[in-house]
Amino acid sequence: MNFCSHCGAGLTQRIPAGDDRLRFVCDQCQTIHYQNPRMVVGTIPEWKDRILLCRRAIEPRAGLWTLPAGYLENGETMIDGARRETREEAGAKLEALAPFALLDLPFINQIYLMFRGALATTAYHPGEESLEVQLFSEADIPWDDLAFVVVRKTLEHYFSDRVEGRFRIHTGTIVPPTEKFHHNRNGKESP
Amino acid sequence: MNFCSHCGAGLTQRIPAGDDRLRFVCDQCQTIHYQNPRMVVGTIPEWKDRILLCRRAIEPRAGLWTLPAGYLENGETMIDGARRETREEAGAKLEALAPFALLDLPFINQIYLMFRGALATTAYHPGEESLEVQLFSEADIPWDDLAFVVVRKTLEHYFSDRVEGRFRIHTGTIVPPTEKFHHNRNGKESP
Repeated sequence: MNFCSHCGAGLTQRIPAGDDRLRFVCDQCQTIHYQNPRMVVGTIPEWKDRILLCRRAIEPRAGLWTLPAGYLENGETMIDGARRETREEAGAKLEALAPFALLDLPFINQIYLMFRGALATTAYHPGEESLEVQLFSEADIPWDDLAFVVVRKTLEHYFSDRVEGRFRIHTGTIVPPTEKFHHNRNGKESP
Repeated sequence: MNFCSHCGAGLTQRIPAGDDRLRFVCDQCQTIHYQNPRMVVGTIPEWKDRILLCRRAIEPRAGLWTLPAGYLENGETMIDGARRETREEAGAKLEALAPFALLDLPFINQIYLMFRGALATTAYHPGEESLEVQLFSEADIPWDDLAFVVVRKTLEHYFSDRVEGRFRIHTGTIVPPTEKFHHNRNGKESP
């Protein structure tokens, strides 16, 4: 961030009066340009004992598998955003959604809210950001080829709850992935 | 938003290729300036059968009562943000927090996440953004002088759950307040 989006003057970084954090401030028009976390909304689409994953066509993590999810838009509710992402990335429509995981990713200034919901039909197809979409049973989840740690964590919570026969709402903080990590088939991290 | 914060050129508003929404786009450096909802985190501080409210020292709604809450900061978890706001606005420290209400306010591009938690002690004091802070029993809640509809809704859920003897996690969408509204003592809106 270099220039004031309001008046075009150069920005300086300092702690404004009454604040305790560095902000980008415009000394010409006095605008303080706050930066805040962004919210990602997505779904776990269910069909009987299987769930739908998308293989990413775009960076980051092109070629790896993920749950349909993306940035919440202005003017949109969280549930509408999650439905939109599911439609855009997986060509899929869901029945009633239930909030399932609300996760902090402070290292990249994101919040993830993942809903779970049954597919309305088995009609689905890859959108522009997906190479393919496919239903997976728990045994077939490509744990070694998941795009993001937050997706792995969400799926671990999901299958763990399913064994228990009840779904809770999960909260927690995702830590940055190490540059290299490997998963065993059971989804546990190994050094 | 008039100027590119990256290169300082004037911005135009158009739908980028592969998108379906109007964005602010820089034709000089090609940056797309996305705008997304911001997250507000806060708490319902409990002390026995009473809860702590703050009377606002600042606009909007100066002089009216609210729960401690404010924008989530980059690099911060939701629970840490809620604790920080409680400390800053009410000078109060809470025991374990539990997520209570996750609410959409699409008309102002905000998401509210409110936690509930017991005060660690009765030590509290108004911060710079508060005129006073005070414990209220349900019968004494100043329903006619609450700052925001989202605060009223959160409190309605809270007291309703408390009567039932169990706290759920509430989701839903807050609609814009009409310019004038009045509340009866029971917290129901009346024309």
